[in-house]
Amino acid sequence: MSSLITVDDLTNEEILSILDDAERMLPIARGETHLPILAGKVLANLFFEPSTRTRMSFETAMKRLGGAVLNLGDVANSSVVKGETLYDTMQMMDGYADIAVIRHPRQGAARYSSNAVNIPVINAGDGAGHHPTQTLLDLFTIRTCHGTLEGLNVALVGDLRYGRTVHSLSEALARFGCSLTFISPSSLTMPEEIVTDLRSSGTSITETEDLHGSIEQLDVIYMTRIQKERFPDEDEYQKVAGVFKLNQSDLVSAKKNMIIMHPLPRVDEISPDVDSTVHAKYFEQAFYGVVARMSLLCRLLGVEVPEVVSE
Amino acid sequence: MSSLITVDDLTNEEILSILDDAERMLPIARGETHLPILAGKVLANLFFEPSTRTRMSFETAMKRLGGAVLNLGDVANSSVVKGETLYDTMQMMDGYADIAVIRHPRQGAARYSSNAVNIPVINAGDGAGHHPTQTLLDLFTIRTCHGTLEGLNVALVGDLRYGRTVHSLSEALARFGCSLTFISPSSLTMPEEIVTDLRSSGTSITETEDLHGSIEQLDVIYMTRIQKERFPDEDEYQKVAGVFKLNQSDLVSAKKNMIIMHPLPRVDEISPDVDSTVHAKYFEQAFYGVVARMSLLCRLLGVEVPEVVSE
Amino acid sequence: MSSLITVDDLTNEEILSILDDAERMLPIARGETHLPILAGKVLANLFFEPSTRTRMSFETAMKRLGGAVLNLGDVANSSVVKGETLYDTMQMMDGYADIAVIRHPRQGAARYSSNAVNIPVINAGDGAGHHPTQTLLDLFTIRTCHGTLEGLNVALVGDLRYGRTVHSLSEALARFGCSLTFISPSSLTMPEEIVTDLRSSGTSITETEDLHGSIEQLDVIYMTRIQKERFPDEDEYQKVAGVFKLNQSDLVSAKKNMIIMHPLPRVDEISPDVDSTVHAKYFEQAFYGVVARMSLLCRLLGVEVPEVVSE
Repeated sequence: MSSLITVDDLTNEEILSILDDAERMLPIARGETHLPILAGKVLANLFFEPSTRTRMSFETAMKRLGGAVLNLGDVANSSVVKGETLYDTMQMMDGYADIAVIRHPRQGAARYSSNAVNIPVINAGDGAGHHPTQTLLDLFTIRTCHGTLEGLNVALVGDLRYGRTVHSLSEALARFGCSLTFISPSSLTMPEEIVTDLRSSGTSITETEDLHGSIEQLDVIYMTRIQKERFPDEDEYQKVAGVFKLNQSDLVSAKKNMIIMHPLPRVDEISPDVDSTVHAKYFEQAFYGVVARMSLLCRLLGVEVPEVVSE
Repeated sequence: MSSLITVDDLTNEEILSILDDAERMLPIARGETHLPILAGKVLANLFFEPSTRTRMSFETAMKRLGGAVLNLGDVANSSVVKGETLYDTMQMMDGYADIAVIRHPRQGAARYSSNAVNIPVINAGDGAGHHPTQTLLDLFTIRTCHGTLEGLNVALVGDLRYGRTVHSLSEALARFGCSLTFISPSSLTMPEEIVTDLRSSGTSITETEDLHGSIEQLDVIYMTRIQKERFPDEDEYQKVAGVFKLNQSDLVSAKKNMIIMHPLPRVDEISPDVDSTVHAKYFEQAFYGVVARMSLLCRLLGVEVPEVVSE
Repeated sequence: MSSLITVDDLTNEEILSILDDAERMLPIARGETHLPILAGKVLANLFFEPSTRTRMSFETAMKRLGGAVLNLGDVANSSVVKGETLYDTMQMMDGYADIAVIRHPRQGAARYSSNAVNIPVINAGDGAGHHPTQTLLDLFTIRTCHGTLEGLNVALVGDLRYGRTVHSLSEALARFGCSLTFISPSSLTMPEEIVTDLRSSGTSITETEDLHGSIEQLDVIYMTRIQKERFPDEDEYQKVAGVFKLNQSDLVSAKKNMIIMHPLPRVDEISPDVDSTVHAKYFEQAFYGVVARMSLLCRLLGVEVPEVVSE
């Protein structure tokens, strides 16, 4: 394993091993213990489009482990503007860093970049393509809260058509035997080929537009943002946005240990009154991104994660 | 003490204790000795509006002590633009960092942020609100130059109406028994309620428009920038700007140990020919910001400052 | 040696000594060994105009050695916009950092800055002025590939009129006894006073417009970008750009150890099919920038470079 472009690059065993290492790193991510095992290593953060959360998450993961981070910075100011190709930019990074994280608007840019260089490359989102570290942190959150990834009832809610995150996560959960419920407006349903693929591999799939009637049998509700731009007019959007939204009052029938997740940023999909419930795990989920990325960075840099003991 | 939102959060004893620690950190800030007591700690620098000087000062304070810094970066590119609330952004930071510095255009944003999270928050300026680390570094500068904060004659000059810095500093100096002279154009005088408050607590206050006639009895002259936008027309501004300006020739009657301060950046308020006089302390003042912030960071992170000996 | 503004500030012995230290640092730059000899030191990266490659090169050089970096950030957001003078900005940096790198659109800005402060200043390009670390890394590349700087046949190709890089490099190579061939369109020839100076110091100079006929006797071809804006119309530019371009097929007559260099970013001057030839050294050259800058940083900070042994 030399780069991570899609979750398909990983076996189930590799995924679980990354999550195991991530778990041992929790005290480091919380600042309770200091373990600079990446001292002297340099990460290049190449965000060809902005993603504050993901960039900062990788940055804190690297720095908590003693490593250093180079930021490409605002692309509008970079040599990219002078007409440099992605290939050439990556050659430069090959000379400057030990590992690179790339976020790029063009699908396939991450794979192309990893082929261009000798250092490991992590895909942090390439257009409509993949974002595998999001999937890893989602899996880590589910496993941490439920103790297992196997056989859970998971609903994915919102924009399932264009949401890169929900496609990868569905495929990963199916590999661990989860049953999936896809809840979306009819114009934003999960792409047919993904549903067909999942069913043909034996996964139980339910498709519905009814969020509120589905809640009581679920272990996980994964909410996503529905973007205004997907709708022909504001009215249509408002109608849909109101329906695919969670309020505290919707949760009375939920299992005690049902968890609500969201890749963030949220806008209106989850009412703030949900934040104080035991179900709300979206902020912890963001924090778990740090350990998931720590674990991955160590693996790709060939650095073993020692048993970590909090001070 | 878990956050610092305003200087009112601190007792006089706490202020003096922060200044004592700051003093012991001078050799570290000068790069003469290396003491990485914040290794493994992460500071989030959340500048929702730019402030180069303050951002870099916190950054060097943290890094000199071995800590790491995350920058939110250009807010125009951040998740804030996608409609994320300040509350949600702060939850993310709570998972990524051990302490946060926030600069925000909205008054009250720092207090709101500190209430939203578990990590300590330092207010680095919230609109017309407070900027307590500026006050700490101002006090450190005065104490370092005069050996005490007690009983000094301090003039504050320029825009006293809108200047957040001079309000906090006046209140702090009053607590240490200083006599204050407020020197400003009539349209930019110190707000009446602040003057009343200070007088009722027994502080000696003089208000005047005459900068040059006041110099000889002063221990400190604290200059501030008068902004063009405060005046209805350019002519009016030019007249005032010319009067509330210090030149070397104005200083002949000054006490030998009188010091001139400025929160910087200056534009025209202090002639460059003053820079070479013994009175000019504004650049040292900027440097002292580093130790004041070092001291505060350690305190809020619960890290004791050891006796520091220069190599 | 307290600052580096132009290569003229260095004797040949100093240049060679910097290159010797740089060579010993290769394992550190490759991440093979970790030697934090600049721990506790702070570099201020002051890019008043963007230069991604140079900024990141200094940043990785500093961080590989355990040092910390402060970035001025986007100048459009900085105190410079509030009307602060370069002198005042530099005073602030004097208090925040141990060494500063400055890139500025105005010729002479680097010298002016270094005179304003006590810390060492490295010129990373000041308008039409100098960019000495580019020259150092160019010399390092040539010496590494050829084993010597003495007596080589070096061609400089492209925009020789406005190219800051080729002016400094020509003068440096002349000091080491190289023979120079200047290959450019007639409108972009090397300035007459530089040619005269070089000839009067005994350097063999050939001037030509013929790139392809010159290749077989050369040891080094240094390509540069020809900017569209230098030409009155697009047609004129396209004609010239097509002629001063290297393709793999142009290299059949080249010496085996002839190397092709480029300060990067390239646009169209070197066909991608050249990248896979033994002659292509432009990406290594970018990497060598890291060690050249490491070496210089240590020297200016007064830190001795120990014998480095790869792990």
